[in-house]
Amino acid sequence: MAKNMIIGQSGGPTAVINSSLAGAIDYAFGQKEIDIVYGMINGIEGFLDGNTINLSDIFKSNPYELNRMKLTPAMYLGSCRYKLKNDEKEYEKIIDLLKERNIGYFFYIGGNDSMDTVYKLSKYTVSHGIDIKIAGIPKTIDNDLVGIDHSPGFGSAAKYISSAVRAVAYDTSIYNVKSVHIIETMGRNAGWLTASSVLARHGDSIAPHLIYLPEVPFSTEKFISDVKQKLREYNSVIAVVSEGLKDKNGRYICAQKGNVDRFGHVMLSGTGAYLKACIEDEIGCKVRALEPSVLQRSGGHISSLTDVEEAFNLGTVAVKAAIKGQTGVFSTLKRTSNIPYSVEYKTEDVSVVANAEKTVPLEWSNSDGHDGTQEMIDYLNPLIEGVVQMPYRNGLPDYIDISHLDIKKQKYRE
Amino acid sequence: MAKNMIIGQSGGPTAVINSSLAGAIDYAFGQKEIDIVYGMINGIEGFLDGNTINLSDIFKSNPYELNRMKLTPAMYLGSCRYKLKNDEKEYEKIIDLLKERNIGYFFYIGGNDSMDTVYKLSKYTVSHGIDIKIAGIPKTIDNDLVGIDHSPGFGSAAKYISSAVRAVAYDTSIYNVKSVHIIETMGRNAGWLTASSVLARHGDSIAPHLIYLPEVPFSTEKFISDVKQKLREYNSVIAVVSEGLKDKNGRYICAQKGNVDRFGHVMLSGTGAYLKACIEDEIGCKVRALEPSVLQRSGGHISSLTDVEEAFNLGTVAVKAAIKGQTGVFSTLKRTSNIPYSVEYKTEDVSVVANAEKTVPLEWSNSDGHDGTQEMIDYLNPLIEGVVQMPYRNGLPDYIDISHLDIKKQKYRE
Repeated sequence: MAKNMIIGQSGGPTAVINSSLAGAIDYAFGQKEIDIVYGMINGIEGFLDGNTINLSDIFKSNPYELNRMKLTPAMYLGSCRYKLKNDEKEYEKIIDLLKERNIGYFFYIGGNDSMDTVYKLSKYTVSHGIDIKIAGIPKTIDNDLVGIDHSPGFGSAAKYISSAVRAVAYDTSIYNVKSVHIIETMGRNAGWLTASSVLARHGDSIAPHLIYLPEVPFSTEKFISDVKQKLREYNSVIAVVSEGLKDKNGRYICAQKGNVDRFGHVMLSGTGAYLKACIEDEIGCKVRALEPSVLQRSGGHISSLTDVEEAFNLGTVAVKAAIKGQTGVFSTLKRTSNIPYSVEYKTEDVSVVANAEKTVPLEWSNSDGHDGTQEMIDYLNPLIEGVVQMPYRNGLPDYIDISHLDIKKQKYRE
Repeated sequence: MAKNMIIGQSGGPTAVINSSLAGAIDYAFGQKEIDIVYGMINGIEGFLDGNTINLSDIFKSNPYELNRMKLTPAMYLGSCRYKLKNDEKEYEKIIDLLKERNIGYFFYIGGNDSMDTVYKLSKYTVSHGIDIKIAGIPKTIDNDLVGIDHSPGFGSAAKYISSAVRAVAYDTSIYNVKSVHIIETMGRNAGWLTASSVLARHGDSIAPHLIYLPEVPFSTEKFISDVKQKLREYNSVIAVVSEGLKDKNGRYICAQKGNVDRFGHVMLSGTGAYLKACIEDEIGCKVRALEPSVLQRSGGHISSLTDVEEAFNLGTVAVKAAIKGQTGVFSTLKRTSNIPYSVEYKTEDVSVVANAEKTVPLEWSNSDGHDGTQEMIDYLNPLIEGVVQMPYRNGLPDYIDISHLDIKKQKYRE
């Protein structure tokens, strides 16, 4: 007998997490084992508050809308940052809510924290003999998930960063004066996005000239001397730095003494802004710091088609596995070839991915840690390939309506 | 008898100034009056140093390369910021250099400062009976040129800003917590780019919630109270601010006391960063400041097709006019209809545009100066229409090679 399905999204947004959602929904609509498809609004936290949406009503008769969702960045269902407490009552409440809706299939799209939710919940259902299949669908721009060749969401963010670096290289080429541009990428502990900037190079354009991964202890003095040296060779120097750079004592560079805002607060963002001030002081040439911030994970118009399609397929694979009876798994992919690029899809036990973190192997950086090897480039390049055919309206990407997310709650002190 | 032509670029870059260059070259190649087409490297300043390039050699047999140039942001010929001195010797030197190369046609692509060069040089040639036709081709992302309905380069930057605002609106919608995002746009004296963010709105998404033009005196207290009020209505508030906001005494907001870097220097950029600190202190909710910086003028992949085509046509129109004997003019366009959008091309006396500045008419903003009227939207919307078919290679926009610009001079103190 058919049961219902519920799906949620959790953690930080990416440009393709909605593609995974679309993939899961699209596959589910064709399966006799699944009746109604529900979504949790604001993840497991919203679900505990009774916040759900009937996705069958909205999308079953409207495949074009599902295609728009596939290409819309951020999260159609909203997100949360909520870790399940090891509290029997919370589990019971979740199971009660699931049974109320006759849910037989539960999917959660997220990063390593979200996979922890899948892990705990599936352990609970199995140990209590509850027949609800629970599976994870991976995502993160940081590419720090283990048990998967690369994380959905990363390719699009990498495409954004590398095209931004190339754009800055062109922009800064026009003046015949010495200049430095510092571009700060996301990825607090894992330098994958920082490293992806190597893809900006082509032909005679070798920007970025310097790359600073968070995996390598950072010295401001060494940075200044690296920049000085590159300025001797090049008119315009572009350095890409991770937001998470730390000194040899493990202290964030952006939290150095003196990096304070107007009220004297230590600034916890702004590694690039801090280094800009250092260069102004020590070198004195023209210098700009760029922090693409959330734009690097939300630029739907520059998504990688490879990333969009893989995210979609990983949504499909999770639903397929659950219908076949698997639980406590996540959908994953393994690269089988670089040139031509190919992957195979499968599932793995979710305990593999939950709470773990994959950083950049240092042997893929050069000896001084400020560049990427050919192996790194070969790994990264297929992930940014392909251009999406974005629907435009009135000159702008025509993303799907998300007004159901505007809950207008007031969680701030005035 | 055919003469040669020279063309240069000057001022700040845009995403489509190379399209004007391509339009001028493409048209010139088909005219019997023009023999060789030269480019000045780094504008009139580079030309005075003898820095030129033979564009006929590179492009005449290679129309595909010219098409790549059309879609490449920044400046293929490099730029300068150089105002002609009122110095007889400098004029004589320029004329000598032009005669040396048998130049009969001189074109300069730039903003109001660059049009001053066209103006002065054409006045000099006319008054000295020198038969060199001199014409300007307009550009600027700021849209502050007079004598033209809108400036080439503006539409693409406006498309970048409005899509960035929409992307941020989607990104920030996912969490059920109060937050504020401040997006800082370029345009120090003219608020056109700031205003263009109104185009981000669609359907139920009304971001940006607040817009602050540099034409309206800015009060930080009023800003805080505006944001507080919007936070009562909306979960997530997006404010777009001009980099050039000034208080009622005409002092830049970013140069307020206390907005200093780690060395105590007053920071001349960072209006958004300053206002972020103000909100953190006075409201205390989650707040981010985004400064797209040079990315808003260099994002070739999100150029407006309308803008690319108009820039191309304005290049053509200038060359056509010069061949017909006009000098001391610039190519311009007049809007003849909003819906359907249409323009007509013509030339105007360059004295109209030189050194003048067009700001946003305040009647196109609402009573408090923090929004745009329908008239503003109707003016702006056609300018961002159309998607370019960008050539991609290895997953990134395949811009034309610009290695001829890397002159590696060392103009900085070490």
